[in-house]
Amino acid sequence: MAQAKGLEGVVAAETGICYIDGEQGVLSYRGYDINELAPNATFEEVVYLLWEGRLPTQAELAAFREELAENRGLPPAAMAVLREIADKIGPMDAVRTTMSALAAGRDDADEATPESDRRKAVQATAQLATIVAHYHRLRRGLPIVPPDPRLGHAANFLYMLSGERPKSAAERALDVALILHADHDLNASTFAARVTAATFSDYHSAIVSAIGALKGPLHGGANIGVMRMLLEIDGQGVDPAEYVRRKLAAKERIMGFGHRVYKTLDPRAVHLADLSEALGEQAGERKWYEMSRKVQETVKAEKGLDANVDFFSASSYYIMGIPLDLYTPIFAISRVAGWSAHIIEQHANNRLIRPVSDYKGEHGRKWVPVEERERTLEA
Amino acid sequence: MAQAKGLEGVVAAETGICYIDGEQGVLSYRGYDINELAPNATFEEVVYLLWEGRLPTQAELAAFREELAENRGLPPAAMAVLREIADKIGPMDAVRTTMSALAAGRDDADEATPESDRRKAVQATAQLATIVAHYHRLRRGLPIVPPDPRLGHAANFLYMLSGERPKSAAERALDVALILHADHDLNASTFAARVTAATFSDYHSAIVSAIGALKGPLHGGANIGVMRMLLEIDGQGVDPAEYVRRKLAAKERIMGFGHRVYKTLDPRAVHLADLSEALGEQAGERKWYEMSRKVQETVKAEKGLDANVDFFSASSYYIMGIPLDLYTPIFAISRVAGWSAHIIEQHANNRLIRPVSDYKGEHGRKWVPVEERERTLEA
Repeated sequence: MAQAKGLEGVVAAETGICYIDGEQGVLSYRGYDINELAPNATFEEVVYLLWEGRLPTQAELAAFREELAENRGLPPAAMAVLREIADKIGPMDAVRTTMSALAAGRDDADEATPESDRRKAVQATAQLATIVAHYHRLRRGLPIVPPDPRLGHAANFLYMLSGERPKSAAERALDVALILHADHDLNASTFAARVTAATFSDYHSAIVSAIGALKGPLHGGANIGVMRMLLEIDGQGVDPAEYVRRKLAAKERIMGFGHRVYKTLDPRAVHLADLSEALGEQAGERKWYEMSRKVQETVKAEKGLDANVDFFSASSYYIMGIPLDLYTPIFAISRVAGWSAHIIEQHANNRLIRPVSDYKGEHGRKWVPVEERERTLEA
Repeated sequence: MAQAKGLEGVVAAETGICYIDGEQGVLSYRGYDINELAPNATFEEVVYLLWEGRLPTQAELAAFREELAENRGLPPAAMAVLREIADKIGPMDAVRTTMSALAAGRDDADEATPESDRRKAVQATAQLATIVAHYHRLRRGLPIVPPDPRLGHAANFLYMLSGERPKSAAERALDVALILHADHDLNASTFAARVTAATFSDYHSAIVSAIGALKGPLHGGANIGVMRMLLEIDGQGVDPAEYVRRKLAAKERIMGFGHRVYKTLDPRAVHLADLSEALGEQAGERKWYEMSRKVQETVKAEKGLDANVDFFSASSYYIMGIPLDLYTPIFAISRVAGWSAHIIEQHANNRLIRPVSDYKGEHGRKWVPVEERERTLEA
C-alpha cells in the first residue's frame, strides 16, 4: 500500500487546470504562465480562462463581466442569515455560513452536473465578494453598500467594503492579487472541495468544504501571521534582521516562508513584492515593504527558506487599508474561481475519493457489561 | 509518484479509531468488533468509546448521557438561522447551514485543540439531532418539540421529530442503526473532515465539510435510492426478482450493493437486516423486509454483489415512519460521532493533507491581447 503522511507527493487526480513545477518555481493556469497573466489580465479574464480553458474574446469577456456583475446581490434568505450572524461570528465562519445558505430557494440545489456547477459558480463567485463586504459593514454597524455594476470585480469589492471608489493603484493591486491566488492545483481547500464533490454532492457543499479548509492557519490564515509580525517589529522599533534572528534562535517559526510544493521562490511572491512596493510608493509609506524585504533576506540567509505567496500579500493588503481578519476572506474571493474549476472538472469525470488508513489501535477487545467495568479498570 | 484514481488503497492517515477488514467483512471500533457492540451497547456508550478509546464506567456513562442531554438546545443565532431557511432548503443543506451557524457567539470558534474539539463535539453531537428534528417540524409548519432530557439520544430524536414517545422496538432499532453508522474509517465524509481539520481549521469547519460530502448520492444518499426502488417494486406490483433482472438487463444500477472497501457482506447489513425484520414483525408489515431479501438474493445470484449498509437501513427507517429525505440527515446524526473522533485525532497529531495532481493540460501558451483574440480563434 502506498503511504505518505499528509499525502505528500501522492497523485490524487488528473487535471487540466493548473500546473506547478515546485523545483523551478513555475505556476501556470491552463497553460499560461502566471508571469504572462499577472501583468496583463484582469481577474474576470482569469476566471473565464480557468473555467472555459481559453481566454475570452472581447464579446465573451464583456458578456461574462456583465453576468458576474448581475449576480452580485444576495438572495433574501442568505441576506437574512448574514444579518442574523454578522455581529456574533468571525469572518470565515460568516462566509462559510452565508455561502451554505445560498442553497436556499434553489431548485437545482441537489444537482451536480457541469452545467449546474457553471451556473452556480458564476453566482457564487460574484456573491462571495458581496458576502465579505456586507459582513464587514454589518458587524461595524454601518449601512451596507450595494454593488455597482459599472465597476469590475476587484474595484467593486473595495467600493462595497469602504463606500468609496478605490484609487487605480489599489484597484489594480487587488486585481493582480486575485489573479495570483485564483488557483493552486490540489492545495488543501481545493482538495477538500474535490473530496466533497466526488460523492456527487453539489457545488455549494463543495465550496463550503473549501472555505472551511482555507480558514485554517496552515492554509489561508498565514498572511495574518505575517502582518502581525510586521506590526510587532514596528511596535518594538527593532531592526527586522535582529528580530528574525532572535525568533529563529528561540526556535520560533517565521510566517510566510517555505511551501509544501515550492522548493524555490514562489513565483507569486515576486509579483506581490512589486505590488507591495508600488502601493507603498503611492501611499508615501515605504516602511512595510522595506521591513518585509529585510525579513525576507534574513530568513533566506539564516534558514535558506524562500518567501511564499502569503509574505508580500500581507503588507499589500495592509497598505490598502483592509482589516487583518479579512485577508483570508479575500483569499476566498479569489480562490473560489479555482475551486469552481476543480468542482466542474471533478463532476465531469468523477470517481469517489476514498483512501484507507493504517490502523495502529487495539484488536479483539471483548464486551464487558457496564456494571462490571469498574472492576476491569481497577484490575 | 504513487497514483490511484480516487486514492483507492492509498494510506492517507494513521488511526486508532476504526478497523475494517474488507476481505473478511470485519468492522471494529477501538478494537471492539461491531458484532460485540450492536447487540449490547447504546449509542451514547459507542460515542464515548470512539472519543475516549475505552468504554465508560457506570458513573462516566451517566455523566456523559447527562452532558449530551444538557447540550441539545440550539443557541439563539443558530435557531434564528434555521427558522429563516427551513421552508426554503433541503434537509442536508439545512443541517450544513445550521451547523455552520453554531460557530456564532463562541469565543473558541477558531481554536483547534483536542480540548476545544471535545467540548464542541459533545455539543454538536447533541445539537445535530435537534437541528434535523426542528428542521422537519418547521418546514411542515408544526411547532417544534423541545428535547426531553430524560430520554436517550435515539428516543429523544424520534420524540422531537414526531412529538410522541417512540415504541421500544423503534427506539432500540434507531439506537442500533446509530451504532452501526457511527464510524467507518476514512470514508469520504470523514476524509473531508480530516482534510479540513488538517489546515488546523476548527471543529465546525471540519464537520460542515463532512456534512457536505455525506450529502452526495455516492455516499449518504444511497439508502434513499434503495427505498425508492422498493416503493417502485411495490407500486408496480411486480416480482422483486424479475424487477432486478430487468434493471440489470438494461444496465441500470441497483442501489445498496457493493462497496469500495468490503469485498464480502457488509457486517452492518447483517444487523440492519435483523432490525428490518423485527420492525416489520412488530408493525405487522413484513413486505418491505421480504421484498428486500428477494432483491438481495437476486443481485447476489446475478451479479455476485453483496448488500451494503444502505440496503436494509432503507426499509428499517421506512417502517419507523421516517420521511425518505431524512435518511441522510439520520446518517449524519450518527456519523458525527466518528467525524468528531477523527477531527480530535487529526488535531492531536497533525500534518497538512495536500496531495499533487497529474497535469494533462496545455503548456507554454502565450498572452494575446483581448482585441486580437478573435483572429486567433478564427485562425
